[in-house]
Amino acid sequence: MTDYPQYGRIDGHIVMIGFGSIGKGTLPLIQRHFDYDPAKLSVIDPNPASAAFLESQGITHHQLALTPENYRAVLKDLFPEGRGFCVNLSVDTSSLDLMKCCRALGVLYIDTVVEPWAGFYFETEDNAARTNYALRQTVRDEKAANPGGPTAVSCCGANPGMVSWFVKEALMTLVTDLGRDDPMPSDRAGWGTLMQSLGVKGVHIAERDTQARATPRPRDVFVNTWSVEGFIAEGFQPAELGWGTHEKWMPETAHQYDTGCQAGIWFERPGAITRVHTWCPTPGPQFGYLVTHNEAISISDYFTVGDPATPDYRPTCHYAYHPCDDAVLSLHEMFGAGRQQAAHEILDVDEIVTGIDELGVLLYGHEKNALWFGSRLSNAETKTLAPYQNATGMQVTSAVLAGMVWALENPEAGIVETDEIDHVRCLAVQRPYLGPVEAHYTDWTPLQDRWEHFPEDIDDSDPWQFRNVLAT
Amino acid sequence: MTDYPQYGRIDGHIVMIGFGSIGKGTLPLIQRHFDYDPAKLSVIDPNPASAAFLESQGITHHQLALTPENYRAVLKDLFPEGRGFCVNLSVDTSSLDLMKCCRALGVLYIDTVVEPWAGFYFETEDNAARTNYALRQTVRDEKAANPGGPTAVSCCGANPGMVSWFVKEALMTLVTDLGRDDPMPSDRAGWGTLMQSLGVKGVHIAERDTQARATPRPRDVFVNTWSVEGFIAEGFQPAELGWGTHEKWMPETAHQYDTGCQAGIWFERPGAITRVHTWCPTPGPQFGYLVTHNEAISISDYFTVGDPATPDYRPTCHYAYHPCDDAVLSLHEMFGAGRQQAAHEILDVDEIVTGIDELGVLLYGHEKNALWFGSRLSNAETKTLAPYQNATGMQVTSAVLAGMVWALENPEAGIVETDEIDHVRCLAVQRPYLGPVEAHYTDWTPLQDRWEHFPEDIDDSDPWQFRNVLAT
Repeated sequence: MTDYPQYGRIDGHIVMIGFGSIGKGTLPLIQRHFDYDPAKLSVIDPNPASAAFLESQGITHHQLALTPENYRAVLKDLFPEGRGFCVNLSVDTSSLDLMKCCRALGVLYIDTVVEPWAGFYFETEDNAARTNYALRQTVRDEKAANPGGPTAVSCCGANPGMVSWFVKEALMTLVTDLGRDDPMPSDRAGWGTLMQSLGVKGVHIAERDTQARATPRPRDVFVNTWSVEGFIAEGFQPAELGWGTHEKWMPETAHQYDTGCQAGIWFERPGAITRVHTWCPTPGPQFGYLVTHNEAISISDYFTVGDPATPDYRPTCHYAYHPCDDAVLSLHEMFGAGRQQAAHEILDVDEIVTGIDELGVLLYGHEKNALWFGSRLSNAETKTLAPYQNATGMQVTSAVLAGMVWALENPEAGIVETDEIDHVRCLAVQRPYLGPVEAHYTDWTPLQDRWEHFPEDIDDSDPWQFRNVLAT
Repeated sequence: MTDYPQYGRIDGHIVMIGFGSIGKGTLPLIQRHFDYDPAKLSVIDPNPASAAFLESQGITHHQLALTPENYRAVLKDLFPEGRGFCVNLSVDTSSLDLMKCCRALGVLYIDTVVEPWAGFYFETEDNAARTNYALRQTVRDEKAANPGGPTAVSCCGANPGMVSWFVKEALMTLVTDLGRDDPMPSDRAGWGTLMQSLGVKGVHIAERDTQARATPRPRDVFVNTWSVEGFIAEGFQPAELGWGTHEKWMPETAHQYDTGCQAGIWFERPGAITRVHTWCPTPGPQFGYLVTHNEAISISDYFTVGDPATPDYRPTCHYAYHPCDDAVLSLHEMFGAGRQQAAHEILDVDEIVTGIDELGVLLYGHEKNALWFGSRLSNAETKTLAPYQNATGMQVTSAVLAGMVWALENPEAGIVETDEIDHVRCLAVQRPYLGPVEAHYTDWTPLQDRWEHFPEDIDDSDPWQFRNVLAT
């Protein structure tokens, strides 16, 4: 991949908001795949640590934090031409406000999460308001209130983002492998009906990160392969998932919604200490954490058939995340201590000595039991693909690239989630950066290998009930 | 410590049963501290891997596994003189049967666990019969039925074992630090009354093992700092603890006993996946696993005041074990996969690059809140103390040494637990091998730093209720 495909010209200014691990990894992809005026590329990031690198790249660094008070003026100033692209990869900024502002300015927009302004995650007292359901609904409501207009791609990272494209690829793989001849659906109703007709009961976003370095994790340091701040914030949100029509049981502290898409539930427990049984190709059966993610709601919502309040069909969908071992230990330490570690470290591509990020979707409950479809990208391969990032970062930044390409090619599509955009085009752009992208069937179910000596709260009549997936 | 103290002569044969990590670590202590006829020292171990080492030491290796069928004949054969010492550091042998056999032969005996014959841990279907309560009671019943006679020290490792001596040291430390002048009790009733009068509500066997090597834990390998087989076996036993008179709440699936000492309860969950809030000097607050251990019952039993069925006072006591990080990951993998790893590894003293085994007792609920008293032995220091073992092993083998010394000095004491023997003498023998032995007070309680955003099942009226200790 030395003759990098060129995906067109970005007219006007390109402003990257946030220059953490994902921002730094996205930059080289923008540089190699788009035509633009280098003088018009700049970065907003409050962290002075970014300054030297950006200067070495000849990129203007606006060293400031966006706030509810300043963001309008700052963005207006940085997008003087009524066009351009805002690439929001920051934390502690309101995705909704930035998106609205960009659209008002005629600027294309992309982000990887519905992020709130600083303080939301830990200062909001009402758990129902701290969910991704609530955050996502604000963007869905804005889309409904203001359809069309400049394209803003919401939640276009690895997950949320890429995994929504994998779900569609996996469905078409199932069509083929079941000997069916359904054409690829062309709209949401078609996709929902297809998933329903294939008998898919639900989807795990099933991830195993095996990246590791050769030094023991230091005590009182949260070590992760991506933003520690981001992971802790979502980890302390309530456990949350899209709730399928096949479910017969609900956790005791579960809450549903009367408003919005009604596709999700949450329960009174931090996601990052809530274990589920899941499956990935490398480990086979494993624990994942039920960390809330936008895609858990968006996928369940997108594939709903019928009235949202009383659907004919809806798949269960949730994240089942086994982060890198150092992060497993960091969570164990954090919850055990009852307080966050003061120091954070992100495993650097050059210190990682082994491992892959295996991120895919596990479609379950159908005739072939379960199908995992995803990327199995190694850190070693990542080094050959693009600089400044490990495998985890590469899966995110390449999704940002794909979303940017789609936005550039569809500049007046309004606010969209990744479920709503052309997954074939996006994966065509992204795939060179994903390492092996594979489909794996398994006969594993969450009823396999349960405890022999202790009673568990399980439903023997249907292996794929969430009751069985939730670990005892 | 080059002029090793000499603790007397062992007449007759010395037979070590089991030559795993603990057996191998105990051998040099026997060699340096006792006078005996080297030709009469032999080892029973079915593992051919021990052969070369034993041969290099000039020690006879009986390569066989003891079974219910052969143990009498084997032991009779190996102890032809009606005296000697049987040092049982094996797995899959019945401590009770070996102890009875040795006493009948006039042979001193020591072990570190009430071990059952092979198959017991996983083939016993009745959980109440799989507890350490049940195992321990068989030895207590034997003691009651056959008092006196040749000394057999039951459960004399680090824990169970040394920690019982630490409890008494900690109580006398409290006496001093509270400005009291209670004399050291001379019998069980005195110790129970002292603990009660000091207001101690309970005891955590609070351990943090920070030993680590410089390579990432391989997948599908259970890595630990001591016997993996032993840890898995006890980890899958029910969570179990000594149950104090101050407790106002019991886990939903808890079971009590109508027979025996009645000091314990167990509940329907494997101990190694059951987390408790505890505290050690190095990490401060941390999760420990509620793995069942003999001392949880023996300490609660020993310090009981009044009728066992309706005691005036009894402390809660349980293990709160944070094993080395690689073992935390191994447990996470094992429970997540629903099956045991095929490969086992014990971190070797020479590959460990950092860490200590911090093993002590946390006496809580008294006027000074909580006192941790224990050994904080580093692997680095261990290397200077004795060969063939890491810090974890050293704490066990030096307790075996101390128990052997006590048995040799008290050869007709019958069956005893470590609570029942002279803790001052034993710690005097053991202390040179324990690194820093320290007392640390803390104002931490399990009500500190609970989740802000989620309800928890806690009792605000009394921080030291087990209800608060058990993690959500």
